Amino acid sequence: MRIKSDELFNELYRILKAKGLEEPDARESARLFVETSLDGVYSHGVNRFPRLISYIEKGYIDIKAKPTKVASIGAFERWNGNRGMGNLNAKLCMDRAIELSKTYGVGVVALGNTNHWMRGGTYGWQAANAGCVGICWTNTMPNMPAWGAKDRRIGNNPFVMSVPRSNGQHLVVDMAMAQFSYGKIEETKLRGEQLPVAGGYDSQGQLTTDPVEIEKTWRVLPIGFWKGSGLSIALDLIAAILSGAYSTTDVGKNCEDEYAVSQVLIAIDPKHFNSVEFTDGIVNRVLADIKASEPVTAGGEIRYPGEKDYRTRQDNLANGIPVNPDIWAKIKALA
Amino acid sequence: MRIKSDELFNELYRILKAKGLEEPDARESARLFVETSLDGVYSHGVNRFPRLISYIEKGYIDIKAKPTKVASIGAFERWNGNRGMGNLNAKLCMDRAIELSKTYGVGVVALGNTNHWMRGGTYGWQAANAGCVGICWTNTMPNMPAWGAKDRRIGNNPFVMSVPRSNGQHLVVDMAMAQFSYGKIEETKLRGEQLPVAGGYDSQGQLTTDPVEIEKTWRVLPIGFWKGSGLSIALDLIAAILSGAYSTTDVGKNCEDEYAVSQVLIAIDPKHFNSVEFTDGIVNRVLADIKASEPVTAGGEIRYPGEKDYRTRQDNLANGIPVNPDIWAKIKALA
Repeated sequence: MRIKSDELFNELYRILKAKGLEEPDARESARLFVETSLDGVYSHGVNRFPRLISYIEKGYIDIKAKPTKVASIGAFERWNGNRGMGNLNAKLCMDRAIELSKTYGVGVVALGNTNHWMRGGTYGWQAANAGCVGICWTNTMPNMPAWGAKDRRIGNNPFVMSVPRSNGQHLVVDMAMAQFSYGKIEETKLRGEQLPVAGGYDSQGQLTTDPVEIEKTWRVLPIGFWKGSGLSIALDLIAAILSGAYSTTDVGKNCEDEYAVSQVLIAIDPKHFNSVEFTDGIVNRVLADIKASEPVTAGGEIRYPGEKDYRTRQDNLANGIPVNPDIWAKIKALA
Repeated sequence: MRIKSDELFNELYRILKAKGLEEPDARESARLFVETSLDGVYSHGVNRFPRLISYIEKGYIDIKAKPTKVASIGAFERWNGNRGMGNLNAKLCMDRAIELSKTYGVGVVALGNTNHWMRGGTYGWQAANAGCVGICWTNTMPNMPAWGAKDRRIGNNPFVMSVPRSNGQHLVVDMAMAQFSYGKIEETKLRGEQLPVAGGYDSQGQLTTDPVEIEKTWRVLPIGFWKGSGLSIALDLIAAILSGAYSTTDVGKNCEDEYAVSQVLIAIDPKHFNSVEFTDGIVNRVLADIKASEPVTAGGEIRYPGEKDYRTRQDNLANGIPVNPDIWAKIKALA
């Protein structure tokens, strides 16, 4: 079934209001969930909403809390998320980074003690919509083994980079350090399929594309083997140090679930030095060249990161957002 | 054979002086090559030196050129490398980013029209030695196919992140977006061995660990498949936009070899908000936990990024730097 974005918004807004969020917060949070769903990232949009509500009910998220600035020096600020709504906190802190970049060229906001930001790409699109380069990442609870290890002690720590284009068709990379998310592994298993490339190790220590085997060991594969493992550790440490708050290790030891995470949100404004036309020229030249590559499969298309999201958005705006009927029923029943 | 670092320094310094570098430049550049070799990154240290000299002889590198600041706003500066020595340009620009971070908390320097920076990790160690978090990257000439493509139109664009520790045993991630460098593929082929994990595609379009097969197609594998491809494009575009200079595409179309590349050097200073003890505490807690992982191989050790470099440095300082006799003979013959 496909649900019009207005209808989805009204439903999510109603529930968030009923849960006690203030009117503007309920509106903004619902809008972010709809935006994510419009872009086709259902796992962190509509499909994730029931879990958000359960986190509110369990008290992991304090819906009344607002982030507070705790330290600042020039273009670098530290904020405490006070365990409020993760998407609202991250949105506000990227807004702040964009604001700082107007004065200083760059803004860095480290946000600790916050909650899952849902779709990381949201804040990349946000920076690009302001004409800025966006760089941001979050740590997570321990969910991936370090390279050479069996047990999960590092996070998959999604990392986002975005490049603005004046036509709004921004380039946005949004990638976790694991080759596949738990959601993707689970979903592939339920369909009885194989992952497109190896996603982890089986009980014999061999790489496998079989989600059933991966779920036996939970040795999920970091991107680039040792490389993604190393980058995950660096992203976690930088987020924890700059925010002065929890590392993945701390979340694992001190929290009963994934909350109190740390994030870094960076905006850099090229408009100080470049005309919009000049920036567009660089991006268009590169993307045209890449798209002119010889495809592996005859007639195949080479896409840039974010291209699919933009196209899906147009489709979903026109035709409604695909929603699983079970999830829709679950959402309708929430109050 | 193992060459003492002083002897290596004297030899490289002699040659750079003979090539016409000013005394302090020859000294600093030789020092950076020795430092890289001490850390065990021979491919970008001593082994790379003859190629540097050939680039000077071909006129790709202007040994008299100094980088110049062309634009600045607060904590964000744009520099023109004027096609001078790549390692000296990058070193100076990371110094400048560190300097900016003292005032603004963060410094971002975009450097265009520069040359190969040799080992990217150098500038990560440099930031960490100043107590800063370092983030930096470079674009390259086209040397990797985009995801879904056969021909090479994107760069492997090395990306570096570093985390300072007061004992000098910093965490430094230094990773190209290709699973393996050309050097590693070539070296593995010459030894008649296989790569430890798949590094590219064979002529039938299948993943392979065989360097001979990869050299037939040059379809080298991006880390994390589509993820490393996307990140490579973002890193390239951000470097080109912020520096206002060449993208990987531009280098491919306008240069006869790899020169005139673009880089971004970022330093963030946590000392504004954290005591050194506090930062150390976070890092030590995380690394101790990761090292306590259950190893895949009984008795195996889980290492953090940069740990091997630090240990190799101690060994090479005490026992000399391992140098291939042929390369040493080649260097001795340079003038």
